Amino acid sequence: MAIENPYYTHEFHGDYDLIGIGQLDLEEGGSIPDCRLAVATFGTLNQARDNAILVTTWFSGTHQIFRDVYIGPEHALNPEKYFIVVVDQIGNGLSTSPHNAAGANAGIAMSRFPHVRIGDDVVAQERLLREHFGIEQLQLVTGGSMGAQQTYEWMVRFPGKVKRAAPIAGTAQTTPHDFLFGRALVEAITSDPGFKDGEYSSNAEVEAGLKRHAGLWAVLGFSTEFWKQEAWRALEFDSKEAFLEGFLEPYFTAMDPNDLICMVWKWQRGDVARHTNGDLSAALGRNEATARIIPINEDMFFPVRDHEAELELTPHATIRVIDDVLGHLALFGIAPTYIGQVDQYLQELLDAD
Amino acid sequence: MAIENPYYTHEFHGDYDLIGIGQLDLEEGGSIPDCRLAVATFGTLNQARDNAILVTTWFSGTHQIFRDVYIGPEHALNPEKYFIVVVDQIGNGLSTSPHNAAGANAGIAMSRFPHVRIGDDVVAQERLLREHFGIEQLQLVTGGSMGAQQTYEWMVRFPGKVKRAAPIAGTAQTTPHDFLFGRALVEAITSDPGFKDGEYSSNAEVEAGLKRHAGLWAVLGFSTEFWKQEAWRALEFDSKEAFLEGFLEPYFTAMDPNDLICMVWKWQRGDVARHTNGDLSAALGRNEATARIIPINEDMFFPVRDHEAELELTPHATIRVIDDVLGHLALFGIAPTYIGQVDQYLQELLDAD
Repeated sequence: MAIENPYYTHEFHGDYDLIGIGQLDLEEGGSIPDCRLAVATFGTLNQARDNAILVTTWFSGTHQIFRDVYIGPEHALNPEKYFIVVVDQIGNGLSTSPHNAAGANAGIAMSRFPHVRIGDDVVAQERLLREHFGIEQLQLVTGGSMGAQQTYEWMVRFPGKVKRAAPIAGTAQTTPHDFLFGRALVEAITSDPGFKDGEYSSNAEVEAGLKRHAGLWAVLGFSTEFWKQEAWRALEFDSKEAFLEGFLEPYFTAMDPNDLICMVWKWQRGDVARHTNGDLSAALGRNEATARIIPINEDMFFPVRDHEAELELTPHATIRVIDDVLGHLALFGIAPTYIGQVDQYLQELLDAD
Repeated sequence: MAIENPYYTHEFHGDYDLIGIGQLDLEEGGSIPDCRLAVATFGTLNQARDNAILVTTWFSGTHQIFRDVYIGPEHALNPEKYFIVVVDQIGNGLSTSPHNAAGANAGIAMSRFPHVRIGDDVVAQERLLREHFGIEQLQLVTGGSMGAQQTYEWMVRFPGKVKRAAPIAGTAQTTPHDFLFGRALVEAITSDPGFKDGEYSSNAEVEAGLKRHAGLWAVLGFSTEFWKQEAWRALEFDSKEAFLEGFLEPYFTAMDPNDLICMVWKWQRGDVARHTNGDLSAALGRNEATARIIPINEDMFFPVRDHEAELELTPHATIRVIDDVLGHLALFGIAPTYIGQVDQYLQELLDAD
C-alpha cells in the first residue's frame, strides 16, 4: 500500500478476488507493472463458457452496488442462469490504483500513477476474461455512467465478443460539458492545501476538498426536482443538510483523492472514436451487439438527447428511458421504482436473440 | 473604499449616479448607515411621473448589460417612451457593497458586511423611486435571475405600485437546488487561502478561487447543449478552453469576492413567502400586476417547470418561454435570437392594459 485506507477493504466491500493480469501497457504511455483487477463473480460459468455477463463499474463505484442492488435471482442479472463478472475499474481503489500501488507498482504510487483510459480498462478486462476464465464471448456487457463508457468501448473494440450490450446513463464519447464538470470535480480536490500535489499521507488530510467534491455531486448528481420534492426524505433524513452530511459527504470523504482523480481523468477522455480517427459514426458502426441504450430522464449531465444522438449512429440499438427523479445518481437504486425498470430493459434484451 | 477595484468604476460601467437613500435597516438585523444605490436612467420622466420602468440586476451583473443589450428605441424597454431606471443591487460592487464600504459605512467593510436580503433591495428601491424621483407607480418591473427575485418581491410587497411585472429566468422562492449551487459557488471562493476569511487586500489574491467559481458557472450557467454545439464559436473563440480563459474567467476574476458572496447569500434566501408565514400561494396571490413569467428553456438551474409551478400560484400571470441554447446565461444576450424574444414578450405585456 502506498497509504492505508480502510474503505478499500473486504470489510467494506465484501467478497472479491484480486486477480493479476500481468503488466498492462497503457494507451497514454507508461504501464502498470503488476495490474490487479478486483473481481466479484456471481453464479457459475457453464461448460461451454458461454453464459457470462460482464458488468463494469462507474466513477467512485465498486462491484458492491451491483451485488446489493442489481444482481440476484429476482433480477435480470440472474446468477442462477448467468455467470456474472463484475470488474472494478482501474483506479477505483480496489483494483490497482494510486493509493494502493505497492510492490512492483511502488514506482507508480500516488501522484506518479500514470493516466489510464477507458480502453486500458477494457483491454485489461478482455485479458482477464480470456486468460483467467477462458471466456471468449459475452452474453451481455453492461454498466452505468463510466461503466457505459466501458460498455461502448467493448462494442467498438471487440465487436465479435459482445452478443448484447446495455450502456446505462453514459455516452460513447464524453461531452464537453462532462469534461468541464470533471474539471470542477478535480479542482475541488486539488485546491485543498492538504492535497499536497497528491502526496498527502491520508485522505483525511483532504477532507475539505472531498466535501467540496461531494457538494458538486449534490448539484449535478441529483436533479433539481429531486431536491425540490425533498426525495431524500425516503432515506429518512430530516433536512437536505442532514442528507449531505449523512450520505454524500461520508460517501466521498472515505475515498482516496488520487483514485478519484485517476477516474475523473479517464471519464473526461472516454471516446470510442479514437479507434476511427475521430469519426464517431464509423466507430459506433462497428457494433454488432444487440443493444439497449438506457438513459435516465432526469440526468443533469448525461441527458437523454446525448444518448439519442449516439443511438442514431449505433446499429442494432434501441433506446429505453428510465424515469427517476434522482437524476444520474438514480444508479444507486435508491428509488423503489428504479431497479424494476432496469430489470425490464435488461430482461427484454437478454430474451432477444 | 475598503479596497480598490478598478472594475467597479465609471471607466468600466459608464454613466451612473450614486444616490444616497440614508440608513437602511436590514431584515436580518444591522443596517447600512449610508446606503448608496448606483442608478442608471434612460429616457425622461413625464410630468405625471407615471411612465417609469424599474429594471433590477442579477448576480454579478450591473446596469451595464441592460444599457448595452436590453434598452433602446428599438427595444421594448424604449427610452423614447419610458423613463427606465436600472438600480444596481446592493452588494454588486457599484451600489454599497463589502469592498467599497467606507466613510459612514467603514464599520461594515469587507467581512463585516451584514447579510442583505432581496427584500432589503426592494425596500431601498422603493424609497429611492419615491423620495428621489417622486415615482409612486411603475408601468413595469423586470429583471433576470436575481432580478426576477426582486421583481417577485415587488409584486408581493408593493402590489399597488406595480402595474406590470416580468420576472425572467428566476423564481419567487429559491429552490433547494439553487441553494446548493450557491453553496458550491461560495465554497469555491472561500476555500482559496488567499481569501483570508474575507480580509484579502486585493481580489487578485483570490484569483484561483474566482477561477474555480467561474468554472462552476461554466458547468451550470450554460446548457449541456451549448457546449456540445460549441456555440461559443459565435463569439470567435477557437476552443472551449479559450472561451473560459477569454470570457468567463476574466469576467469573474475582475470582481470582488466579498461582493459575490454577499449576492450569493441573498440569492440563496430569496423567498416571497416570508411575507405570509411560508405560504407561497398566499404570497403570490397578492400580486395585482399583469405578469409575464419568462423562463429560458435550456436553463440548468432555473428550469421551466419551477417557473410553471409558481405560475400556477400567481394571478394575472401567463408564461412565455425563451428558446436559447445558452441556458441561464442567455441573459447576456449573446445569441442573436435572444433579445427579439424578450422584446416580443415585454412589448406584448406593455401593450396590455
